[in-house]
Amino acid sequence: MNIEMITAAAARLDGIARRTPLLHAPALDALAGRRVLVKPECLQHTGSFKFRGAYSALSAMTPEMRGRGVIAFSSGNHAQGIARAAQIFGAPAVIVMPSDAPALKIEGTRSYGAEVVLYDRGREKREEIGARLAQERGLTLVKPYDEPQVIAGQGTCGLEIAAQAFELGVSEGDVLVCCGGGGLTAGIALALEAEAPGLRPRPVEPQDFDDTARSLKSGIREVNPVEAGGLCDAILTPQPGELTFPITQKLCGPGLVVSDEEVLRAMALAFRHLKVVAEPGGAVALAAALFSADITADTVICTISGGNTDPATFARALTYI
Amino acid sequence: MNIEMITAAAARLDGIARRTPLLHAPALDALAGRRVLVKPECLQHTGSFKFRGAYSALSAMTPEMRGRGVIAFSSGNHAQGIARAAQIFGAPAVIVMPSDAPALKIEGTRSYGAEVVLYDRGREKREEIGARLAQERGLTLVKPYDEPQVIAGQGTCGLEIAAQAFELGVSEGDVLVCCGGGGLTAGIALALEAEAPGLRPRPVEPQDFDDTARSLKSGIREVNPVEAGGLCDAILTPQPGELTFPITQKLCGPGLVVSDEEVLRAMALAFRHLKVVAEPGGAVALAAALFSADITADTVICTISGGNTDPATFARALTYI
Repeated sequence: MNIEMITAAAARLDGIARRTPLLHAPALDALAGRRVLVKPECLQHTGSFKFRGAYSALSAMTPEMRGRGVIAFSSGNHAQGIARAAQIFGAPAVIVMPSDAPALKIEGTRSYGAEVVLYDRGREKREEIGARLAQERGLTLVKPYDEPQVIAGQGTCGLEIAAQAFELGVSEGDVLVCCGGGGLTAGIALALEAEAPGLRPRPVEPQDFDDTARSLKSGIREVNPVEAGGLCDAILTPQPGELTFPITQKLCGPGLVVSDEEVLRAMALAFRHLKVVAEPGGAVALAAALFSADITADTVICTISGGNTDPATFARALTYI
Repeated sequence: MNIEMITAAAARLDGIARRTPLLHAPALDALAGRRVLVKPECLQHTGSFKFRGAYSALSAMTPEMRGRGVIAFSSGNHAQGIARAAQIFGAPAVIVMPSDAPALKIEGTRSYGAEVVLYDRGREKREEIGARLAQERGLTLVKPYDEPQVIAGQGTCGLEIAAQAFELGVSEGDVLVCCGGGGLTAGIALALEAEAPGLRPRPVEPQDFDDTARSLKSGIREVNPVEAGGLCDAILTPQPGELTFPITQKLCGPGLVVSDEEVLRAMALAFRHLKVVAEPGGAVALAAALFSADITADTVICTISGGNTDPATFARALTYI
């Protein structure tokens, strides 16, 4: 992985991915006691940054490979990113999703033309289903974060942050990144190292799923005690990625951890002051920017990594206003 | 009013107002049966396009005039726009608001440093309070729409629409504008006449408050039978403006009218597919784009004029998903 791969991905994504703006609101600055700039990737195509990595991966394939089709395992944002990227290329896409995934996410993935294969979490293994389908149809697996071209695509978000910070005269501060497997974190970290070395990337995770924060402390890839069930469904991964963790370890500052209540309050504040929809996993970085005692930077730039939340969860967050 | 005033306002607003993106989502295109591009002015500073006109008006004043302060009557978005623009200039701002205005809007206006003077709708006249304060303190009144520099400021949104449509290769279609007093409609209409004459502006209003649509038919400024109480509080005005209506009449296509249910559904769809927060009055144009039978254009560009809605109303809209 290197910056050249990210700038190459940016060239492929030019005019395709949305250059999301950098938002801010005086009320959030006042609440945080520091300047808070927000990169709303919820406004990206398919409602999350995942479109960047998905399109980067597909656009890096040979037309022949792409023409045979791609396959992904995902119950959420990666699924929609892959489905939409494949749709743009006219390539077949198969997404293996658990049968108990939220109906809206299954419907969303289908709406981009993907074939959704449902499996029973209790009785079947998605890897086996995937391997069989891949072999039968010659599909190429696109992993959600441990895949160089996916990381390169997510890194284009970091290039934009570097350029937008420069336009505002911001050369120092913390860049808070919503962190699951670490694809966005690693991509942004590589981009900032090259383009804005005064901006320090820091992963942010929800309570009970702070594998990256603990791994950064211990130096080895720690595993979460639980695998699912948290509020922040989009960023719940068992442990940091094989490819992403060495990058995070080399380039990132200490991890930050936020509570579910802080996440819901951040969602409510994004609704009220920024007018964007953040999903729980997408709001962890804003929650840290607003409520964490472990930040000393005068300026923080935080990603809102996605907005694919169901109405009930959003309505619950709104009660925190 | 002319295009030169708008380009001059754009120069004053450069680097101050946010250049909002042009969003779209395949699901909305499919639902509408046409291409739907969305200009989310809810992402503008203070959560609505009103900041453009407010800053335009204040920046056109002499420093001496501005230094004495400004005054506005408003229960909503114009109040916040004026308050924020005055704050940027370090100018005093007095906003006369009804005492029964939503607490969040009063609080929002105060958060930008404005002095809020509350009055009792039943017992007092805001014009009298305003006139007295203006005289005592030498304040300058900034009207919400019947004011040339305000219309010029709103027109900058039209310049952006023209440029963004050009970038996408769109040279023909309807531009749907959320319409209250007509400041945004007139401003956008003047900008499009000069910069994108193939794009036809059309005002959109909510049921029971369709004064502009009826006025465009009859040729005279019609008055609404009721003055308040509708869902779309941000765009409820008694009749088209004196300055704005002749512009609308000359440049706009037929008006469109949407039902409250269509508005709530549009808010839910903006949440789901665009991840932006639209207030009811800000969602009328999107509602028309999606549900109106009176549109034949293959491409529509619709404004979301603001996002300052309370959680209860938004939660109600979410039940329409």
